[in-house]
This record gives sequence, structure tokens and C-alpha cells, in this order.
Amino acid sequence: MRICIINPNTTSAMTDLMAEVARSAAGPDTDIVAVTSSMGPASIESHYDEAMSVPGLLAAIVADRESEHPSDAYLIACFGDPGLDAAREIAGAPVLGIAQAAMHLAALSGGGFSVVTTLGRTIGRAEELTHRYGVAGLCRGLHACEIPVLELESNPDTEVILTDACARALTGDGSESVVLGCGGMADLAARISDKIGAPVIDGVAAGVRLLQALVPVGGFPGPASGEFSRPPAKEYTGLLSGFALR
Amino acid sequence: MRICIINPNTTSAMTDLMAEVARSAAGPDTDIVAVTSSMGPASIESHYDEAMSVPGLLAAIVADRESEHPSDAYLIACFGDPGLDAAREIAGAPVLGIAQAAMHLAALSGGGFSVVTTLGRTIGRAEELTHRYGVAGLCRGLHACEIPVLELESNPDTEVILTDACARALTGDGSESVVLGCGGMADLAARISDKIGAPVIDGVAAGVRLLQALVPVGGFPGPASGEFSRPPAKEYTGLLSGFALR
Amino acid sequence: MRICIINPNTTSAMTDLMAEVARSAAGPDTDIVAVTSSMGPASIESHYDEAMSVPGLLAAIVADRESEHPSDAYLIACFGDPGLDAAREIAGAPVLGIAQAAMHLAALSGGGFSVVTTLGRTIGRAEELTHRYGVAGLCRGLHACEIPVLELESNPDTEVILTDACARALTGDGSESVVLGCGGMADLAARISDKIGAPVIDGVAAGVRLLQALVPVGGFPGPASGEFSRPPAKEYTGLLSGFALR
Amino acid sequence: MRICIINPNTTSAMTDLMAEVARSAAGPDTDIVAVTSSMGPASIESHYDEAMSVPGLLAAIVADRESEHPSDAYLIACFGDPGLDAAREIAGAPVLGIAQAAMHLAALSGGGFSVVTTLGRTIGRAEELTHRYGVAGLCRGLHACEIPVLELESNPDTEVILTDACARALTGDGSESVVLGCGGMADLAARISDKIGAPVIDGVAAGVRLLQALVPVGGFPGPASGEFSRPPAKEYTGLLSGFALR
Amino acid sequence: MRICIINPNTTSAMTDLMAEVARSAAGPDTDIVAVTSSMGPASIESHYDEAMSVPGLLAAIVADRESEHPSDAYLIACFGDPGLDAAREIAGAPVLGIAQAAMHLAALSGGGFSVVTTLGRTIGRAEELTHRYGVAGLCRGLHACEIPVLELESNPDTEVILTDACARALTGDGSESVVLGCGGMADLAARISDKIGAPVIDGVAAGVRLLQALVPVGGFPGPASGEFSRPPAKEYTGLLSGFALR
Amino acid sequence: MRICIINPNTTSAMTDLMAEVARSAAGPDTDIVAVTSSMGPASIESHYDEAMSVPGLLAAIVADRESEHPSDAYLIACFGDPGLDAAREIAGAPVLGIAQAAMHLAALSGGGFSVVTTLGRTIGRAEELTHRYGVAGLCRGLHACEIPVLELESNPDTEVILTDACARALTGDGSESVVLGCGGMADLAARISDKIGAPVIDGVAAGVRLLQALVPVGGFPGPASGEFSRPPAKEYTGLLSGFALR
Repeated sequence: MRICIINPNTTSAMTDLMAEVARSAAGPDTDIVAVTSSMGPASIESHYDEAMSVPGLLAAIVADRESEHPSDAYLIACFGDPGLDAAREIAGAPVLGIAQAAMHLAALSGGGFSVVTTLGRTIGRAEELTHRYGVAGLCRGLHACEIPVLELESNPDTEVILTDACARALTGDGSESVVLGCGGMADLAARISDKIGAPVIDGVAAGVRLLQALVPVGGFPGPASGEFSRPPAKEYTGLLSGFALR
Repeated sequence: MRICIINPNTTSAMTDLMAEVARSAAGPDTDIVAVTSSMGPASIESHYDEAMSVPGLLAAIVADRESEHPSDAYLIACFGDPGLDAAREIAGAPVLGIAQAAMHLAALSGGGFSVVTTLGRTIGRAEELTHRYGVAGLCRGLHACEIPVLELESNPDTEVILTDACARALTGDGSESVVLGCGGMADLAARISDKIGAPVIDGVAAGVRLLQALVPVGGFPGPASGEFSRPPAKEYTGLLSGFALR
Repeated sequence: MRICIINPNTTSAMTDLMAEVARSAAGPDTDIVAVTSSMGPASIESHYDEAMSVPGLLAAIVADRESEHPSDAYLIACFGDPGLDAAREIAGAPVLGIAQAAMHLAALSGGGFSVVTTLGRTIGRAEELTHRYGVAGLCRGLHACEIPVLELESNPDTEVILTDACARALTGDGSESVVLGCGGMADLAARISDKIGAPVIDGVAAGVRLLQALVPVGGFPGPASGEFSRPPAKEYTGLLSGFALR
Repeated sequence: MRICIINPNTTSAMTDLMAEVARSAAGPDTDIVAVTSSMGPASIESHYDEAMSVPGLLAAIVADRESEHPSDAYLIACFGDPGLDAAREIAGAPVLGIAQAAMHLAALSGGGFSVVTTLGRTIGRAEELTHRYGVAGLCRGLHACEIPVLELESNPDTEVILTDACARALTGDGSESVVLGCGGMADLAARISDKIGAPVIDGVAAGVRLLQALVPVGGFPGPASGEFSRPPAKEYTGLLSGFALR
Repeated sequence: MRICIINPNTTSAMTDLMAEVARSAAGPDTDIVAVTSSMGPASIESHYDEAMSVPGLLAAIVADRESEHPSDAYLIACFGDPGLDAAREIAGAPVLGIAQAAMHLAALSGGGFSVVTTLGRTIGRAEELTHRYGVAGLCRGLHACEIPVLELESNPDTEVILTDACARALTGDGSESVVLGCGGMADLAARISDKIGAPVIDGVAAGVRLLQALVPVGGFPGPASGEFSRPPAKEYTGLLSGFALR
Repeated sequence: MRICIINPNTTSAMTDLMAEVARSAAGPDTDIVAVTSSMGPASIESHYDEAMSVPGLLAAIVADRESEHPSDAYLIACFGDPGLDAAREIAGAPVLGIAQAAMHLAALSGGGFSVVTTLGRTIGRAEELTHRYGVAGLCRGLHACEIPVLELESNPDTEVILTDACARALTGDGSESVVLGCGGMADLAARISDKIGAPVIDGVAAGVRLLQALVPVGGFPGPASGEFSRPPAKEYTGLLSGFALR
């Protein structure tokens, strides 16, 4: 099985970090292809960044589909799950976002969960996703550590700050598990879990494993006339003329 | 007051149609600026089209903000309300989508409403928006007339087909009003209302009038640290490098 | 366009205050008719007061309908929106309540909102209305300033107390805007907004502007057999015999 | 125990019918006081009728409170539950509406239920009440038999029509029980239940028995500063000047 | 009328306490049969205990059905309402759980309520039940006093601790009433109510009175093919072979 | 990794069928231990059967925990997910039910889904689970094929009947995928999916793969004082005395 992970921001160091986590989660029988978006924002910390990350994300999926060895599934590696519905229409294969994956895995782990994310201004989107994915009743709190995405790796205190935030969320919210709200935190999940004594769920590993579960189901992309069937071909113009589907 | 209407598809005939409806709705004291997106899909009939319409939409808002006479409010003239959250972050002024406007006006008109839209594959998005806007309990049915967006004007039977669909929705759903699910239907609302004897709500006129109601409230864009405050400046690369906010 | 504002309490000073706000909101092309209820409570601060304000409210609408120049729309100027459903049945034209108007305009302004009202005992009704209007998910807090309705004007500290309550609600609830929970606060919205740096929404101005948006939709009162069609004529007796519809 | 049943319409024949059902439900140890409203509509078949029935209803409760032997509980005998919140504020004792009582008893009887009521135009209110009382998820259908309230007794086919409507609702909705949507149907519940082989719940009997369950709880009207504590005294004027609370 | 109360734990002292409360609630015309489970846990303080209490509960109901004088209704006297759906299938008569009874009676008493229970680990189940019974919107807080079930009677401070917890819940949650979250607290409801000045609802008395209200409805167990009709006969083996229905 | 699948009914042929599906889903690196319950009903087709299947299920988990090689995760192989909460308390490892697994995987596959189950009387439980798992908004229909559980294998028409039911559900409900509502249908999912051209999800394979995704998360059973921590030891008596936890 081949799973394609797309980092919808343009920072390849973050792609590398997530690819390593993904390969470790995937095990030896699954190939991980990790792609960095070729256009758009260096990190995603606003609705604007998120919207502008979608063309690069979709271009990466189209390129993979048209390659010699298209992947069997796709993972959108940003906690806002940008472009998820559109990606489903063109992938012809299962697609997940890492927020979706992490939140569902938290729900499956039992009881309520907390989310610990980067900047406070992204909490609104995360909360909206809890409603979209049906887990709002299980989400007992959303918290920001106020470390910008691109500082997660360079800040020497990241692990301490995040561990503390997770521990406080677990106790304060009365949660059974914690979801990490950024792909750039993926490498820290296991260590934080050990320290706080509860499941800590990172969406990259969660997404890889849930896609391993989804691919064998088969039958994708589903009904030919459905909401997620391939869009009709159509003229595209201007800067985005190259995005027209054939 | 100046209201800027952005048609997020690239078909200027549709912009013209909507501008006329908007000017009629706005009355003499409000200037309507109507902009056609400079890039992307000729019409929006899928999640993919919708996602790819957002850069052109946001570019149009940025251009208006940086013009000599920035508008007082913005209307996103596609029934999927693409890019609404991102637009709020950069507009520094009220922004509405036409689905949002039409659905709220239907809710305010009293009782339940039905939606009549173009293609069946877009019903999923419309239904999702009823939940996002808190009107799902009032929406008693969503129906497609299966006329593609760009055929609405050219198809000689459009008015008959739509009128019939609205009349059947009103009766079959037990609704009090009908929402038209595409900006390209904007010119037909009044005539269909006359025929079916109930409010028929078009999002373009609805949006213009609701923005006239919002602008005097003032206080936009709200709290400086809030979800919709201006995004942090950041590097953008590749095809979209021109989209970096300063 | 003529909009009739009915103050369902019997205090004409409050009607005058709201009429002034309404005229300012309406602009020069809309006539505002402001009516004080001819019977019932001097202010509305309980479910009992609210219920007893309805006959006077409905009498005022009937009188306007039977006048030489019936209005094009009606605004119920009490934050509990008393008699709204009944008013719809007899008005044959759009009717809004000021809580409904303010809450919808807050929802349209984007993000979550807080409500600041008069007495704590009225919070239950306001909360119920957030559910009825589909905005409960956006309402992040309801707060009382404990100033009785009829003291709002005479209390020299009203503006300071309200401004402080709005500022604390905005921060404490993480809201994007504030709704004022009494028609008697209508004149303070703009000044408080300036001070707290966020939209502050008063239902009187909101209601006038939303009715200006609703009236052109046309098609009211909707389907002849619907929930809000004119009630069947019927015998009324006793003190209320004059209320029989013909 | 003494339970006061107030018929909020002015038709004493309907009061008599409901009093008989109430006495039978109450058993020998509970006194039933049945009061016909002294003012307002002869039957309640619209939001307007309902609103105009409230003053007479509240007057009856006040009169009972001020009588030598105030009742221990109050039942509002109209399926729209008019004036329920206001009644709670002035009764100082448990108050139920017959829709509330019937819907809760249906929920307690297990599984989903259907409602069979009089006119189609009243279904909107009944549906709203299912939400207010938390039973919307259990209510599988609302149906009208289109017999006006005051014809229920005189129409020789009432029992046949209602039995048929209940049987079809039970099967068509997959319900476990049926709620009768008008106090004027109270005498038919047992016979219809026998014929359709499922619980058929009338709100008058349900209300009497649930009040018998509530009165011994004690502690009413609850916290002194709460939403349902006694309203502040205040000036009332005009036709309703007699309604001022002391 | 004969009501059978089943204590699903094996501690007969607790059965005796609840039987006394039940008899007092029932009045002279209703016989109370109180049964202690013949197998399983001595108290119910976990999901495991609750699950293992169900066979003994169902055996008690079957035994009562097959006795010379089967009861007219059944009350499951544990606040988790174990086995409620299964009990309905075999009882052929109304069945309630004490959490269900207490929560519905709190809803009927008007306004929001708080729950005060034994151990914190049982709050999850209680919260789930508020959703199942449609009262989640009315439940303003769930609190534990951390007294184990079997210590309620022996701990000399139980009444003081519970009264204090109820008083704080009432004020802190802004509730109108309090529900006691364990059958072993049944005897304290009236005294705590007197002290805190608000309704305090115990599920044992509530259940008895609500069953008195349900039995006369008749028509149980409802439709022959419904979810709660008698299960098909079937082979049972091993330790539980005696549980096969005939 | 070792996953223990417990068939909570006593029919070993069904265990064998599910074990084969589970092994195929698990791949070569995961050991599947399949256990048939040692007590209780031969099949689970009612709330009564379901409740009586729980002791055997829990006994199987306890036995596995106390064995030389305890499993890493547990799957409850009945579509009602009996005993799930109790199992979590004693497993000290991830536990899923097959309804939970199938419903979550359907949600992750995108769009709405339908459920096709055995007997109509079990639809109530399945619907309740859609609410408990947060997927009620995605579940567009629940359908019964009316083949009893133990006839699924012997009935020569099972595959034709189920395929037809799935195809009709997909079209009639406008769903994107179908969930099979019984472990005994597990072997048919792939063939039906091929025929109807959409994902068909069986909970046994779904559960195995989702447990493979959950186990590496680690941190189970979570917080020491949480809802799902190990229950306190306690006396058990009678037929179930052997179930006391130590």
C-alpha cells in the first residue's frame, strides 16, 4: 500500500518531520510518499493561509494521480484539514485530514478528549471541525500554547510547554485523552503520553493508520453521481488556468 | 455606502446579471462595485471548483482594499460561500456569502424554507451550510433542478422549470418560503414569488440588503486578537507568491 | 416604506427613545411609526409582564392594519419578542422582534457573541430565544447588569456600567461582538462599540434595517394554508371581546 | 390534594368534558377544580388565539391563589401550553401544560411517539414544544385530523376519524405510542388505545397524574432570585390595569 | 395497583431503605413489592458493576411475572438505570429507572436542574442518561460527593455533606432544583429540600409516582412487532442457561 | 500485536466465520484470538439477549487478561456493542464494538451512509448508537432484511437479499456507503461492494483495523481516577459470585 502525505505548507523541514512519524506509524509494508506543497504559505495560521494552501495541495494530489504509481490513499497534513472535500472529488481513493483522523481516533479511544494547538486564533476552526466530525460532545476543551507553527521545532521549550499544557488540559477538562493540534507536533506524542499517563494522539500517525484501515474497504470513490464523484471538466483561466480538470 | 460584490467564477455575464440585481436591491444611495474573478473556474459546480475559486476571490478583496476607495462591505456571490472566513480576516469590514444571506433572510421571514439549486451534487454543501448558519431546523428540503450554472441564462425553460420546482418544494416540504441556490437565478426571484404566492429569496439581493444593515453597526473587524483579526505576515512561494500579505 | 415599531410596554418615554434610534437607523426614505401599547405593564421584566404585554401589542398591529396607511412591516420592541408568532398571523407583512433581529445581525457579523441585558431573571428567556433562532452555538455568554428597565435612562451610571459589562463579556467569553438585551439601551450601542472596539448590536436599529431588507422580498404572508396564514374568525368574550378577528 | 385545571378557552362544555376525565384520572383523594376562562377566544386554533387566551388563564390562577383554599397545583388545559412560564411565576406551586404532560408521559412509556391533533396549522406549535421539552428525538410524526376544536364533540365521526389517524400514525411512523393533541379529545384516549393496541396518551389525565407526582416533591417555587420567582410589583394600565400584581 | 421495585444490587438494607421511601410515596392504595437482586454486586459503582447487575434484575422481573400476582409496573432502583430496555421487553408493563424518573420530574418541575451523586466515576453515565432522556439542555451541572454507595447510611456526615453539595450546586449552577444521584439517598430528599429552599428530587419516590401515572394509560407493551415486544424464544447455555425465555 | 475478538453469542460457527474475516483483515503480523462466549444466548436479537450476553463477554476478557499472553486489544463482535463501557474498565487496553468501528469507518470514508441489518426490532438500538457515536447526522437510513442472525449462513438467498437491500439503500437514501449491521454478514462485504459500486463496511474487519490503529497510541487505560479506570474490588454473590473483580 502506498499512502501519500501532503504537507500543504511549503516548509520542507516540517514535511520531513511528518514523513518520519508517518513511516514509523505505517510499518514496513506501507510506502509513504511525502510531498511538500509547491506554492503558497510557509505555515498555516489563519483562515487566509488555509484557503491559500488548497491549490498547492490539490496540485500535489493531481500530480500523484497522474504519476506512474498513484497512491492508494491521501493524508492532508494540516490540522485545519484544508481542501478535504475537493481532494475527495479528485483522488478517487480515500482521503483524510489529520484533524479528522486525530479526532476520530480520540473518540475511538473512549471518553472525552482535549485539543492542544498552536495559536489561539486557530481554535475557532478546530472547534468547527469537532462539529463537522460529530465529536463536539466529546471535545471537553480546546487550548493554545501560543507557539507559532514554525517555532515548534526551534523553540527549546516546546516539549516542556506542550507537556504541561496537555497535563493541565487532561485534569482541568476531565478528559481521557489529548489531541495535538498541529502536524509539527507529531514527533512528541509518544513522549508526552508517557509523561501524562494517557493517550496523546497525533493526527499524522493517526491518519496513516486510519488510511491503512480504509483502503481495504474498497469501493471508492463511491456512487458515480454522488457528491464526491469526479467534477465535470471545465475552463479555468488566469493564474490558475493550469488547474482545469480534464 | 459602497458594497463590493465579487463573482468568484470568471464568467462576466453572470457578474453583470448579479450586479443589476444588486443595484436594484441597493437603491440609489449605495454604490455597487461588481468584480469578476481574474482566475479560476468558469462556474462553480463542485468542491474542487469552489476551492479553486478562493484565490481569485481573495485577490479581488485585497485589490479593493488597496484601491483609492475601498468598499464598506463585501458580498461573495456564489451559493457555497467560498472563502468566507478568510475574506473576513482581510476585509476589515463586514463580509457575507449569498447562501448565508439568503438562509438568514429566509429564517427572518418566518417558518420553514426550502432550497432549490442547480446540480444535485451541490446539495451536500448547501446542507452543510444550513448547519453552519444554525438554520438546519428550518430547512425542510433541498432540491436540484439539474440545470448547470452556465445554462441558467441560455436555457429557455429555466424560469418554467425553476418555478415548478419552487412550487413543488413549497407544498411538498410544507415550507413558508423558498431560497434560490445560485447567484445566476437572482433575476428570477420576484417573478417566481408572484407565481407561487410566497417569499422567494435570492442571495444577491438578500446579501446587499443585509450588508446595508451590517455596515452601520460599526466596530469591524472586532477584537484585535480575535479569530478574524488580520493574519500575521508571512512568506508565500511559487505560483501564489503574490498572495503574501504584508 | 413605512415601518411600525410597537413598544409593548406602556412607557412612552421609552417609545420616544427607541423611535429616535429607529429613525436614525432607517434613513430618510423610510417612515417610522412608533406606537406605545395602550394597556398592560409599564415595563417588561418577567414572563408575566411579557405575556400581559401581548394584547396591547396585537391591538396596535390590528389598529395599524385597519388604518388608512397600513405599515409595510412591524417591529416588536421588547427583547423577549412577545407575541411574535401571533403578530405574524395578523400582520400580513414581515414582523420581527428586537431579540431576533439583534441575534441574527450578531450571527451575520461573524464569530461568537455575548448578550448583556437588564435583570438576571430575564436571562432564561434570552437563552431560550438563542435556541429558537438557531444561534445558541454562537452565543458564548448571557450577562445581567441588574439595572431595571425603567432606570436605564435615569441612572447616571448606566453607560459606564453597561460599557464595563460589554467589555468584560467580550474578553471573558472570547466573543467577537455584543448584543444589548433591552430596547431601552438602544441609544448607547454606538458609543459602547467605540469604547470596546467591537460591534455592539442594538435590536431596534437592527430590526429596522432587517425589515428594510425583508420588505422587498415580497410574497408575505406566504402560503394561504400555512401556519402563519390569517386565523379563522371566532367569538371572543369578556374583557377581551374586542379582540375577535373579523 | 387540590388540582386546578384551567381551560384557557371560554367554552364551558369543553371544561366539563376535561373535568370529568381529570376526576377519573385523579382518583378519590384529589379534588379537581375546573375553571373556564372568563375572557378571550371560544377555542384556540392559532397563535393569535393562544396569545389572547393567556390573560384569562392567568386571571384564573390569580383568583385561585387569592381564594380561601388555593390549589396545590395547576394544569393548563390547551395543547399549546399557553402562558406556562408566566403561570409558574405567579402560582407558587407546580404548573404543567397538557402538551408537556402528554409528551413527557409518552417519553416515559418508552420508544417513539406520534402526535395526532386537530388543525394542520397548529402542528408548528406542537413541533416547537417537542424541542422545548427535549422530546423532539422521540417524536416520529405530527398529524392533523382537520376537525376544528369545537366540532370534536358534535361531529359523529370524530372517534372513527381519530382512531384511524392514530392507527395509521402508529404504523407509518413506527411509533410505540400516540399523543392526542387537544384537550377536547381527552375522553377518547382509552377507547382508541384498546382499538390500536398501544398506549394513547391524553394530556388532561397525564397532567393530573404528573401533578400528583410533582406536588409531594415540595420546595416550590424554588430559589428566591430565580427565573420563576414572583415578578416585581409594577403599574399596569388601560384595559389590563386589573392585572397588576401586588 | 402493585409496583415492584427491584434493587439491582444485593444489599438488602438498601432495598429496605428504598422500600420505605417507596411506600411513603405510593400512598395506601398502591402495594409496593421490593426485591433485592439474588446475584451480582453488593453495590453499583462502575460500568462493570452495572452490567453485572442486569441478570439478577431481569431474573427478578421474570419471577414476578410468573408469580401468582404479577405487578402492574416495575422500577429499577439504581441511578444508572441498568437493563431498562431489556426489562421493557419482558415486563409487558411499564418500567422506569430511577434516573429517568428523577430527571423527568426535574424537567417537569421547571427550569434547570443539578445532579448530586456518589462517586465521580459515575458522572459519565449520568451525563449520558441526560442525553438519552432529552434533558441534557436542562442539566446545568453534575457533582460527586465521593461517598461510596454502601457508606451513605453509615457515614454520620452524609446528610451534612449532601445538603452542602446540593446548596452549592443550586447556586453555582443557577439551577431551580436538584436531583439526587443514588437510590441510597432517597430518604434525605425532603429534609435537604427544606434546608435549601428548592425541590430536591429522589428517583425512588419519583419513579413510584410516575409509574402510578403511567399504569392507567394502558396499552402496554405496545405494538406486537415493535422494538419492545417480547423477544423470540431461543437457546441459552452455560451458567446462564436458566435465563432462556420460553 | 494480538487482538482478541469475542463473539458474545454462543454459536461457534459464527465465531469461526468472523475469525476468518478478522485474520484476513489483520494481515500476517497480527495474531487474532477468537473466543466464543461460554454462556448466554445463541444469537442476539433483542435488548434481552444483548443484556444477557454481557457476562460471558466480560468473562472472556477477564480470562484473556489473566492468561499467559494477554491481548493488546479487544473487539466486541455483536452490532449492539454490548458491554462496551464495562469492557473498557477491565481490559486495560483499547476496546471497540463492531457497530462503533463500522460507523466510524463509514464516517471516515466520506459522506452519508446507510445501515442494513437483520431484524427490524434491532433498528432502535442501531439508531441509538448513531447518536452515541456522533454519526447520527451522517446516517441517512436504517433498514432490516428480516433474516434472523442464525439463518444468515444457511439461507441460500442471503447474499442476493442483502445485495439488493444495500443497493436500494444506497440509492434511496442518497448515501455514499453502506454499513452491514451484523457480524454474521462479515464475509459478504467485499462481494456486495463490488456489485453496488460503493464502500460496504463490515464491523469485524473495520474493528480489527481500527484496533491496529489504536494500539500504538498507547497510554491506555488513561487517567487513574477516570471513568474507565479499574473498578473498585467488591463482593459478588449468587450465580455471579465468580465475577467479583480482585
